[in-house]
Amino acid sequence: MITLLVSPDALDASPIEVTGDSYRHLFRARRLELGERVRVVDGKGHARWSTVEQVGRTTARLVVAEETPGNEPERELTILAAAPRMQRAAWLVEKTTEIGAVTIRFINSERSPRSYGEASLGRLRRVAAAAVEQCHRARIPEITGVHPFSELANLLAGCPQRWFLDPYGAAGMDPGTGPVALLVGPEGGWSEIEREALLGLDCRRWGLGERTLRVETAAVAGCSLILLAKTPM
Amino acid sequence: MITLLVSPDALDASPIEVTGDSYRHLFRARRLELGERVRVVDGKGHARWSTVEQVGRTTARLVVAEETPGNEPERELTILAAAPRMQRAAWLVEKTTEIGAVTIRFINSERSPRSYGEASLGRLRRVAAAAVEQCHRARIPEITGVHPFSELANLLAGCPQRWFLDPYGAAGMDPGTGPVALLVGPEGGWSEIEREALLGLDCRRWGLGERTLRVETAAVAGCSLILLAKTPM
Repeated sequence: MITLLVSPDALDASPIEVTGDSYRHLFRARRLELGERVRVVDGKGHARWSTVEQVGRTTARLVVAEETPGNEPERELTILAAAPRMQRAAWLVEKTTEIGAVTIRFINSERSPRSYGEASLGRLRRVAAAAVEQCHRARIPEITGVHPFSELANLLAGCPQRWFLDPYGAAGMDPGTGPVALLVGPEGGWSEIEREALLGLDCRRWGLGERTLRVETAAVAGCSLILLAKTPM
Repeated sequence: MITLLVSPDALDASPIEVTGDSYRHLFRARRLELGERVRVVDGKGHARWSTVEQVGRTTARLVVAEETPGNEPERELTILAAAPRMQRAAWLVEKTTEIGAVTIRFINSERSPRSYGEASLGRLRRVAAAAVEQCHRARIPEITGVHPFSELANLLAGCPQRWFLDPYGAAGMDPGTGPVALLVGPEGGWSEIEREALLGLDCRRWGLGERTLRVETAAVAGCSLILLAKTPM
C-alpha cells in the first residue's frame, strides 16, 4: 500500500495531478503503473482510494474514488516536550507521528532553554509529513514551538486530561476520555517552580520507572502507553 | 548523579583507577572534585556508590562504598528484531536500553535480509554502554546478530513468554511472569512461512494498532508497554 499526502482540498477536486518529488518517488522510484491504486490523504484525517489514470513524463493523474479508513487513533494526544537538540527533536516527531500524536509542541523550561528557528521547524514538519505517508495515517500533527513555559495555560486549553512525566510520580495512569496532554520535562527534570505551576494547572504526575529517560525516549514511551495500550495502565 | 560503567570485577577491587575517556569525561568535562560521589555499575546489574579519593593529571581513584539500587526492571525482556539499517538499529538499541531491555538480538527475515559486520556490532554495543550510564541502570544489554531466522528456536529457549508483533494480532497482551521475548518483524511484515514458524514456536500475536510502525518504533513501543505499564494492557 502506498499513502500519498495531498493538499487539503485535493480529495474533493479529482483528478489529482502528481508532480515534482511525489511524481519522482511514485512513478520513477516505485514504478507505479496505470490502473494501480494509491491511498491519498489530506493531512486533516480524511483518506480515499485513488487510481492511476495517466502517467506522463513529469506528471501523473490520480482519479479519486471511495473513502478508506484514516487509521487515526481514537484518542487525541498532544505532546508538550522540553525542546531537545534538533536531531533528537526530529526523532521525537517521527516516532510520535507514527504512533499517533495529533499535536507536538516544544516548550522552554528552566533546565533546557532552547529555541528552534523557522528552518528547524520546517524540517520537523517535513519529517512529520514523511512519517504520515510511511505509517499510513491521514492527519499531520501540528508542530509548534519553542513556546515559553508561561504559555502553558493557553496551550493546555481544550485538554481536560493533563499529565506530566516526573520521577516523583507513581507508575500507572488512566487517560480517561477526551483529549489528553502529555508534558515531558528536560533531562535535568522540572524545577520546583515548574512542578508547582504544573500542579496548579491541574496536571497530574506520572512516573515511568527508575531509569532516567531522555526527553525523546520519554515522549515516545508515554505516547505508546497512552495510544497503544488496550486498557488503562 | 553520575553513573560510571566499570569492568565486571572492579566493584570488588576497590579502589578503582579511572583513566582514558572516562577520566576525561568525569574530571575534565564534568569537573568532578575530591570527595564527590559517583555511582559505579558493573554492567551485570550491580551498583555501588564510590567516592573520589584522588585526582591526578591523567587518572583518578574512586573508593567503592555501599550498594545502591541497580534501577533494573523486574521483568527480563529480550527483543528480537528484524535488522533495520544501522542508524535505525542504533536508535533501537539506545532507546530500548534506556527503557530496560536485557537482550537485543537482530534477526534476518525474508523481507529484510541484512547483516551487520563486527564494526557495526561494536558500535551498537558502545551505544548501549553509553545509554546505561545515561539512564542510570546497572546492566548492559547483550547485543547479538544478525541471526538466521532458523536459529529462533534456540534463541527463544528460556523465554516462556513469547510475543510477536503482527498487524493481524489483536491489541492488548499480558506478559505474565518470567522472561519475555518480543519479536518485531520487518516493515514489509513477516512472510506467511515465518508467521507459521512463529506460531509453531508458541509465539503469540500482538497488534499495535492500525498504523504501520517502523521496526525500531515498534520495538520501542512494545518495550515500553511491556516494561513501563503498571498493569497488563
